[in-house]
Amino acid sequence: MAQSADAKAYNAKVYVTLRPSVLDPAGTAVRSGLSHMGYDNVSKVRIGKYIEVELTAESEVAAKSQLDKICDQLLANPVIENYRIEILEAVAV
Amino acid sequence: MAQSADAKAYNAKVYVTLRPSVLDPAGTAVRSGLSHMGYDNVSKVRIGKYIEVELTAESEVAAKSQLDKICDQLLANPVIENYRIEILEAVAV
Repeated sequence: MAQSADAKAYNAKVYVTLRPSVLDPAGTAVRSGLSHMGYDNVSKVRIGKYIEVELTAESEVAAKSQLDKICDQLLANPVIENYRIEILEAVAV
Repeated sequence: MAQSADAKAYNAKVYVTLRPSVLDPAGTAVRSGLSHMGYDNVSKVRIGKYIEVELTAESEVAAKSQLDKICDQLLANPVIENYRIEILEAVAV
């Protein structure tokens, strides 16, 4: 994956969430804890991951394509998790 | 925290990130793993939490105020973490 001279820097934000059908014990525990703390108007809590990635790529499309692979292979478990990717161009390298 | 009849439902998204000055060993490990997998164009990875909260409140301002307290008390560690809150109004209850 050699970078050519015109590779650009991108800042990506990746949101990994449990699929709606998957139980979230940690979220349930937080909701229960909030209830004990007096916040009984909180009806649901779901906990996911938020990952910031800095990378260089030829184009935004290339960056998105690579991040899709990275999510499938490492950041998310596609069996139980969904992910969403946002990409912003950073300053040129 | 009794709810009056005109309480509205809100969906909030909370992003908890480590302060920039705090080391992120998990993020560094992911970056290193990606490098070993051939993704050597990834220069930085920071891992945070993404939390979805459903709650009812009198107003968006009240919901925001309560979520600030919840973050300070439970969801984030203010010493080493920052948080950001986004609130969307859900269907009326």
